Amino acid sequence: MTTQTDFDMPERILLGPGPSMVHPRVLRAMSRPLVGHLDPLFLQLMNEVQQLLRYVFQTNNQLTIPVSGTGSAAMEAALCNFIEPGDSVVIGVNGYFGNRLCDMAGRYGATVRRLEKAWGEVFTPDEIEAELKKGPARLVALVHAETSTGALQPMEGMAEVVHRYGALLLIDCVTSLGGVPVKVDEWGVDIAYSGTQKCLSCPPGLGPLTVNEQARQVLRSRKTPVKNWYLDLTMLERYWGETRTYHHTAPISMNYALLEALRLVQEEGLEARFARHRRHAELLWQGLEALDFSMHVPLAYRLPSLTTVRLRPGLDDLAVRKRLLNEFNIEIAGGLGELAGKIWRIGLMGYSSRQENVNLLLEALRKVTGG
Amino acid sequence: MTTQTDFDMPERILLGPGPSMVHPRVLRAMSRPLVGHLDPLFLQLMNEVQQLLRYVFQTNNQLTIPVSGTGSAAMEAALCNFIEPGDSVVIGVNGYFGNRLCDMAGRYGATVRRLEKAWGEVFTPDEIEAELKKGPARLVALVHAETSTGALQPMEGMAEVVHRYGALLLIDCVTSLGGVPVKVDEWGVDIAYSGTQKCLSCPPGLGPLTVNEQARQVLRSRKTPVKNWYLDLTMLERYWGETRTYHHTAPISMNYALLEALRLVQEEGLEARFARHRRHAELLWQGLEALDFSMHVPLAYRLPSLTTVRLRPGLDDLAVRKRLLNEFNIEIAGGLGELAGKIWRIGLMGYSSRQENVNLLLEALRKVTGG
Repeated sequence: MTTQTDFDMPERILLGPGPSMVHPRVLRAMSRPLVGHLDPLFLQLMNEVQQLLRYVFQTNNQLTIPVSGTGSAAMEAALCNFIEPGDSVVIGVNGYFGNRLCDMAGRYGATVRRLEKAWGEVFTPDEIEAELKKGPARLVALVHAETSTGALQPMEGMAEVVHRYGALLLIDCVTSLGGVPVKVDEWGVDIAYSGTQKCLSCPPGLGPLTVNEQARQVLRSRKTPVKNWYLDLTMLERYWGETRTYHHTAPISMNYALLEALRLVQEEGLEARFARHRRHAELLWQGLEALDFSMHVPLAYRLPSLTTVRLRPGLDDLAVRKRLLNEFNIEIAGGLGELAGKIWRIGLMGYSSRQENVNLLLEALRKVTGG
Repeated sequence: MTTQTDFDMPERILLGPGPSMVHPRVLRAMSRPLVGHLDPLFLQLMNEVQQLLRYVFQTNNQLTIPVSGTGSAAMEAALCNFIEPGDSVVIGVNGYFGNRLCDMAGRYGATVRRLEKAWGEVFTPDEIEAELKKGPARLVALVHAETSTGALQPMEGMAEVVHRYGALLLIDCVTSLGGVPVKVDEWGVDIAYSGTQKCLSCPPGLGPLTVNEQARQVLRSRKTPVKNWYLDLTMLERYWGETRTYHHTAPISMNYALLEALRLVQEEGLEARFARHRRHAELLWQGLEALDFSMHVPLAYRLPSLTTVRLRPGLDDLAVRKRLLNEFNIEIAGGLGELAGKIWRIGLMGYSSRQENVNLLLEALRKVTGG
């Protein structure tokens, strides 16, 4: 037997696009002993998780659950349940995750209609309407908060257009839920999903998903079975519904963590939480501008939870980030896809969104980049 | 704001089919702060997790990873990557999870050939050969340890037959890995998967999977893309391989837990761990027989990690289990499918496999059933 010490990890200042820092109460929740997945206490916990997810999604949708995988699994669940081979699907592609939506939808046999825009731009309802005029679609998918670009898609007027043409509206809220308003019912969104490791400040491993009655009707009217067992909502809605019909073993400890993270959101209150994210983002933007950096996304649709900032000419992307991590214990991220090497991505999400973190990062950047 | 106390859960004695009890060191590992999924420290952790998974699977397979979902996700990954529409697949159905394999394989377009046996029985190589003689198959799937029946499928001679007919051998090790021998390389198994919440005594949420070179060759020779994005091994092998190409955000805390759970397995040693599972199972069987219960599965292929015991006539399944939980804080499980109401399932897996747990259960059963 080797001499073994307990597992350890240093405490990083996580200011990338996720995972964000996790509140000590959430970490403590995960360290509680396990109960069984059919234990009455766990069934009660499932109810509370669902109720609080409805609160953050601002919805009354009964079918609101944490998918037992990361945000990408929730993304796939949001698509595969509503697509049958040959269905026409319109997807807004203005960043990395729009591309991923296209990849996934294609695997389920959809005829994918890519609506392209520059990375960092957003869509108008008129642009969506122009596409829908060309022919009907089963659904329109948009990324509400593009983690690769830092753009926040305005939702006003979108559902009205999409519904007028008989399609469902699906949105990706991975980097918005819990940090900026996501008003599923008010906006008329039919399907929305997120991840836990961003503004909810829970470790990665679960994917919140909400589906309204119109979308459930589409699910019930399918002519073919869902081509994915693990993410099949016709079974998951029974597992998370009144009968609790066994499907898979829910990740117990991850649900402990999610419940505690959601309780923290509720205790703070959504409005106060959104204001905090906004306030610290503005501090960051001012500080970055003072260091002679410019933001990639115009203020009008700039995402508070994730900032994309352009590198100044001559700066070495990897070298700067390596020094931030090794000398200052701070993680930020580089660009994805076509923005690689051109921007940094700085997240101020959930428990990471604190004034001291903004100050620590700005001071470190000043020292490292000589701004 | 409501007055809120920290999240809490009681400490149950978990003797059902999983989750099993989790060692305090694993619980503590999960409560460590998060690092990013691209942090050099996390990449190093991924390597160690893979190396220790190879140890428990007794394999040198390079493609050995924890799938970012529960055991059911690993099951689906084990199928969907190797099946193309029209492929013929032979599946041994002698319990609930054989049925699940058929359900999943069918969704990916396989022509499923169900090889049926009574729940609790196992297959011989001759029976597999008789089926393969009827026509070639892409793969043969067997459940090594049937969580619904408590039967342990002998593996001697299986791969030889399966390979002679040009098929891949896939096995479900959900309830065996880490508790009874799983010799992937020695047995010639091509694809094997498991869950973390059984004999590895880690919380549910990850699905260990190992794939050998023959199976990877089949994956590389696909004519169509894998019809599942989240579980697509052509991308996952790059994420877990040398390039670390971003796919999804790994569940950080769950991987902390798995690493610590695997370290505990290594410290104990596989042989000692198997002997412990065997010893406590035998104690349980003797004790149950002394209480006039009989086992569902003959000793020759009875699974040590999960015992199925027949209810004595007149016993009320639900009432007994409810009293065990409420009065003795002990969880055991009822039967699934055609064994519902006829058997109980008693797990002695990982950290749950302790002499005191056997004694507590036998004493509680004696009091509750008047044995």
